[in-house]
Amino acid sequence: MEYNIKCTVSYDGTNYMGYQVQDDLPTIQKELQKAIFKVTKEDNKIYASGRTDRAVHAFGQVINFITQKNIIPKGWLNAINAYLPDDIRIVDVKIVDLDFHARFSAIKKEYRYYILHNKQDLFKRNYMLMQSNLDIDLMNEALQKLIGIHDFKGFCSGSIDKRKETVKQIYEAKINVIGDVLEFVFVSNGFLRYQIRKMMGTIIEIGTKKAPLSVIDKIFDTCDPRVSNKMVSGCGLYLYEVFYKE
Amino acid sequence: MEYNIKCTVSYDGTNYMGYQVQDDLPTIQKELQKAIFKVTKEDNKIYASGRTDRAVHAFGQVINFITQKNIIPKGWLNAINAYLPDDIRIVDVKIVDLDFHARFSAIKKEYRYYILHNKQDLFKRNYMLMQSNLDIDLMNEALQKLIGIHDFKGFCSGSIDKRKETVKQIYEAKINVIGDVLEFVFVSNGFLRYQIRKMMGTIIEIGTKKAPLSVIDKIFDTCDPRVSNKMVSGCGLYLYEVFYKE
Repeated sequence: MEYNIKCTVSYDGTNYMGYQVQDDLPTIQKELQKAIFKVTKEDNKIYASGRTDRAVHAFGQVINFITQKNIIPKGWLNAINAYLPDDIRIVDVKIVDLDFHARFSAIKKEYRYYILHNKQDLFKRNYMLMQSNLDIDLMNEALQKLIGIHDFKGFCSGSIDKRKETVKQIYEAKINVIGDVLEFVFVSNGFLRYQIRKMMGTIIEIGTKKAPLSVIDKIFDTCDPRVSNKMVSGCGLYLYEVFYKE
Repeated sequence: MEYNIKCTVSYDGTNYMGYQVQDDLPTIQKELQKAIFKVTKEDNKIYASGRTDRAVHAFGQVINFITQKNIIPKGWLNAINAYLPDDIRIVDVKIVDLDFHARFSAIKKEYRYYILHNKQDLFKRNYMLMQSNLDIDLMNEALQKLIGIHDFKGFCSGSIDKRKETVKQIYEAKINVIGDVLEFVFVSNGFLRYQIRKMMGTIIEIGTKKAPLSVIDKIFDTCDPRVSNKMVSGCGLYLYEVFYKE
């Protein structure tokens, strides 16, 4: 009998070279594999909703794996966490249909980006971008321009595979102001590599009045990744939630 | 001509073995010395208001050193910070009288201890203690008992130097409730080694009803460090401010 185990994972990306296994470098995937293998004693293949880059965090990354072990969700959670380092935690486990796939079943994703505004705080250095003198109204106008169906090729990594679909829909893009913290929320049916970090770079250019609002139109019109040439640090970025059909 | 430079220093103690230099281990003092020597090219002796233990943080540690270099405060701040790692920051510099001494001139100190209450958050793991089911009223009663002049020998490290003065006065001891966070504030004319971590251990025993309020009287009466045998992690502890005569 086979079981499909869906895990929601939270991690602090500070000490990792990103999600995906890369030889001998510390990655989130490597730690998850080690911990899951120790529980199952099987050679499970682990599927994630997507990669996250170096220093990027997750509140709700989703992974799944197929196993022959019959364990209740709470048992999986405790057993895997017992083998994980304390900067990676399984926060939820569900036993799901065998056709569930963390990546292919996802219908949308939410990322959040955090800026500490007009303030320095060394305790936040790995968790937020520190930036001063941002015009929040202007940035909200910029975010409005991103909402909808667009070809986001101009906001992604220059080295993207040409066959990759770069037309995506952003459903939500907004700023929540929480004291000194600006919380940027992005919900889309898919994000390209570096897309949020490059969108945020452009939004900060607009917010600090170094670029006009129209630069967004230009990036959409030209689809040229060299126009959106500012990319912010990954340390303020969090994979917040992955959404699936009920 | 000699100048006495007083620096207020903030640091994230996570990656250090405490303040004081210990051979080849990473310490705050070692980083400060390296950075200051690079600026002054002198062999300055650096005085701190006191040590902090492994993993303990500081918002406002104070150090001073005597130099022959004539630099304005802002110049010192920028120059020293340029040589410091990003988890240690000079946040203020003042040029003070030659008789100022960071340790001997201090009249009182404020420490704060942070607990994340009834919640888990892996991003806070190095910055707060996570603890559930605390009775805040009971803990406030416990804090009231600590205020005033007492012999705190029973709350300090068992290996304390017998000649050390263990009678101290706590001026303030209270809890600020900030959402899920409990901020414990302690102001005293001096703290003994491990005193706050052992007081917090006892307060948590009382708050979780594992010990009665009267355990505090017993620790004061017996002066026996073995009675206060719970010591919390240093990661929730912050040297918040050092006070000097105006």
